[in-house]
Amino acid sequence: MALIVQKYGGSSVADAESIKRVAKRIVDTRRAGHDVVVAVSAMGDTTDELLDLANEVAPIPAPRELDMLLSSGERISMALLAMAIHSMGFEARSFTGSQAGMITDSQHGAARIVDVTPVRLREALDEGAIVIVAGFQGFNRDTRDITTLGRGGSDTTAVALAAALDADVCEIYSDVDGIFTADPRVIPKAQKLDHVSSEEMLELAANGAKVLYIRAVEYARRHGVLIHARSTFSSSEGTYVLGEGMKNPRESKGAAMEEPIVAGVATDFGQAKITVAGVPDVPGKAAEIFKIVAKSGANVDMIVQNVSATGRTDISFTVPKADAPAALKALAGEQTEVGFASLVHDDQIGKLSVVGAGMRTHSGVSATLFEALSDAGINIEMISTSEIRISVVLRDSDLADAARTVHTAYGLDGEAEATVHAGTGR
Amino acid sequence: MALIVQKYGGSSVADAESIKRVAKRIVDTRRAGHDVVVAVSAMGDTTDELLDLANEVAPIPAPRELDMLLSSGERISMALLAMAIHSMGFEARSFTGSQAGMITDSQHGAARIVDVTPVRLREALDEGAIVIVAGFQGFNRDTRDITTLGRGGSDTTAVALAAALDADVCEIYSDVDGIFTADPRVIPKAQKLDHVSSEEMLELAANGAKVLYIRAVEYARRHGVLIHARSTFSSSEGTYVLGEGMKNPRESKGAAMEEPIVAGVATDFGQAKITVAGVPDVPGKAAEIFKIVAKSGANVDMIVQNVSATGRTDISFTVPKADAPAALKALAGEQTEVGFASLVHDDQIGKLSVVGAGMRTHSGVSATLFEALSDAGINIEMISTSEIRISVVLRDSDLADAARTVHTAYGLDGEAEATVHAGTGR
Repeated sequence: MALIVQKYGGSSVADAESIKRVAKRIVDTRRAGHDVVVAVSAMGDTTDELLDLANEVAPIPAPRELDMLLSSGERISMALLAMAIHSMGFEARSFTGSQAGMITDSQHGAARIVDVTPVRLREALDEGAIVIVAGFQGFNRDTRDITTLGRGGSDTTAVALAAALDADVCEIYSDVDGIFTADPRVIPKAQKLDHVSSEEMLELAANGAKVLYIRAVEYARRHGVLIHARSTFSSSEGTYVLGEGMKNPRESKGAAMEEPIVAGVATDFGQAKITVAGVPDVPGKAAEIFKIVAKSGANVDMIVQNVSATGRTDISFTVPKADAPAALKALAGEQTEVGFASLVHDDQIGKLSVVGAGMRTHSGVSATLFEALSDAGINIEMISTSEIRISVVLRDSDLADAARTVHTAYGLDGEAEATVHAGTGR
Repeated sequence: MALIVQKYGGSSVADAESIKRVAKRIVDTRRAGHDVVVAVSAMGDTTDELLDLANEVAPIPAPRELDMLLSSGERISMALLAMAIHSMGFEARSFTGSQAGMITDSQHGAARIVDVTPVRLREALDEGAIVIVAGFQGFNRDTRDITTLGRGGSDTTAVALAAALDADVCEIYSDVDGIFTADPRVIPKAQKLDHVSSEEMLELAANGAKVLYIRAVEYARRHGVLIHARSTFSSSEGTYVLGEGMKNPRESKGAAMEEPIVAGVATDFGQAKITVAGVPDVPGKAAEIFKIVAKSGANVDMIVQNVSATGRTDISFTVPKADAPAALKALAGEQTEVGFASLVHDDQIGKLSVVGAGMRTHSGVSATLFEALSDAGINIEMISTSEIRISVVLRDSDLADAARTVHTAYGLDGEAEATVHAGTGR
C-alpha cells in the first residue's frame, strides 16, 4: 500500500461530469489499496470570473481581499469532489489551505510556503478517509489571513503535501499525456518521455514547456518528491520527473533505460527583443542599462553584445513580451544619461531550446543544432547556453519549421502523432 | 458615535453594481462617525446554483461537504464588498464565520450558535476598519469543521454579532421598506409600521410574514438586540423591532407613540389540511395520530377536532404543503392500527392571522374579525388563537379578499400604496 498524492487542474474539474470522472479515478486508486490525498484547482474558468468581478468592484482590489475571494474557487471544487466520492460509498473529507496546515509568508497573491503541518490530513488518512485539499491557497500564521500561492500554485500545493506526508509519488494530472520531446501542437511527431530528470524539466519549463510549473519542480527536487505527470483523460502512464539519485519506478518493470542525450526541444513565442543601439563602449555601460531594465520590473532572459570596432556597440536582450513596454519606457527616460543612440523593439521573435543532461558528457550536441538550422536556411539571431541547454532566437515565423528540423536531427521523432487536448490549469 | 451592525441579503449584493451601492451605503454610515460591522449573504442566486451543482455530483450530498461548498458563497460576496469599500478610501476587512468567532454546534446545514468570540473583529474595529463578516456560517470547535446556520442564517449572524459586540442597533436590509401591516403584494394599502414588539414580530413571522426570520427575532429578544428592518433601496427609516422594556429610538424624535391594538394581518398560502376521518372516539387516539405525524417529520400547525355524537370523530390539522405527502404516507401505513376510516388531503387552503399585543387588554378583537369575514360572505374552516393572535383557515381563493376586508375592519389601511421590490435573501 502506497500513499499517493494527486493533483487535478481546473480543466479536469470544469463541470459536474468532469468532477464525477475525477472522483471515479480517485476511488479506483483507493480501491487498488492506496491512501490518497488530492490537491484540486478551482473549476474551469472560475478564477478568471472571480478576477473579473473583483475588477468590476475595485480598480485595484485590496490584495488581502483578493486572496479571500480567489480562495473560494477551490472550496467549491473540493467540496463537490468530496461529495462525489462520498456518494460512491467512500469516505472523503475536504480541507482548506489553512485546515491542511499550508503555512505561508504574508505576500498576498504570491505567497511562499514556509511550513506544512498536515495534522488533520494525517488524522483523516488514519481514519481511512480520502483527503481532498484546496490547491493554490494557504494561510499566514502571524496575520491569520488567507493567502494564495500565485501561478502554478496547485502544483506546488500537491508537491508540498507529498513532501510533508512522505508520499510515494505525486501525480500531476492535466489534459496532456505527460512531458513530450516537444510541444505536440508545434511538432506532431513529438514523443512522450518515459522520464526526465528534474534539472532537464526545469530547463524545459523555463524555456516554454507548460505542463509543469517551475516552482513545483524546484520544490520537488529540493524535497525529494517523485512527480508523475499524466493525463486525466487516459489511464496510461505519463512521465516521471526524477530528482537526483531517484530511481525510475518503471525500471523494476523492465523498461528500457538507455538515456538519450537530448530530452526535448522547447519553443517559446512569448519573448520580445530590445536592442540598445550605439552604446558608448566604456566599462560599466552594460551594468547601467540592466540596472534600469531591472528597476522597470522586466525579467531579462538572453543578452548579446556585439563586438565593437567604432567605439560604439549594440546591446540586445530578450524579455517577456508583456514586460517590454515598461523596459522601453525606463530606458528611453535615461537615454541622455546612458548616452545610447536609439532603441529598437522587436516582438516577432521566437526562442528554440534544446535540453539534455547528456550535453555534459557528449560533445557535438550544439553542432547538430547549428547544422540542422543552417541546412534548413534558418537564420540565428542570438545564442545562449547553460550546462544542459542551448537556446537560439529566430524569426517567430521560422520557429515551427526550425523546431521540426531540430527534433528530427536529434532523432526524437516518434511514429504516431500525439493527442492534444485544449485547456488550462493553475 | 455608535456601533452599528448591518445585514445585507443576497438580492442587495446580486452583482457588481449592487455591491458598489451597498459599499457606498456602508461608507456613508462610517462617514457619519459610526463603527460598522456588516454581515453579508451570498450574491443573488449563488446558493441555489451551488446546491444545483451539489445535486449534480451527488444524489444526497454529504452534509459536511455541503456546508463547505455553500460557505464559499459568502466568501465571494464579502471579499468583493471589502474591496469595493477599500477602493473608496476606507479600510475594510472581511472575515469568515470561523475567523469571526461564530462558534456553533456540529449540526451541518442547521447549526445553532453556541458562542460568539469576535476577538479579531474587535481588533479590526479598534484599528478603525470597517468589518465585513460572512453571514450564514460558523464553525464547530470540536470537529473544527465549517457549518452553516440554515434558512435565515445571515439575519441570525447579524443579530448574534450585534449581541456579542454590544451594538447600538442591528439594521437588517432587504428589498422591502420594513415590516408592514400586511403583505403589500396582497394588500396594496398595507402600511409600514413604525415599530413592532418582538413578540408580535414572532407571531407575524411564524404566520407568513417573510421580512425577518423567526430565529433572528428570537435571538434578538433573548439578548436584548434592537433590530431595525429597512430597505437597501431607500434611505428612509424602516421598522424597529422592540424587545421587552426597549425604548423606541424615534420617541426622542417626537414621533407619535400611540399603540395600535392590532399590529398586522399575516397571510400564509403554504399550508395544507389533512383530515383523519372516522377516528374511534376513545382516549389516546389523538396522541397516537400526532405521534405518527411527528415521526414523519411533518410540522403540525393548527389542529381541530370535531364534536363526536356517533362514537366516531374527525381530526383535522394543517402542515406545510411540502410536509403533507410524508404525513399522509405515514398515517396510511398505520390505518388498521389507529382504526380510522379515511384520509382527506386538501391543499387549497389559506391561513389568515391577526396579530396584536393589544389583544391582551382589549376585548372584542376577535369579534371584529368574525364579523368582517361574515359580512364578506367568507367561510371559516378552522380557528386557532394564541395570547396575541387569532388565525383562521379559509379557502385559498378567499384569502386575498379576506385579508383586505379584515385589514380595513381593523383600521389598518393607509392612503398611499406600498412599493414592492422582487427578490429573496437568506
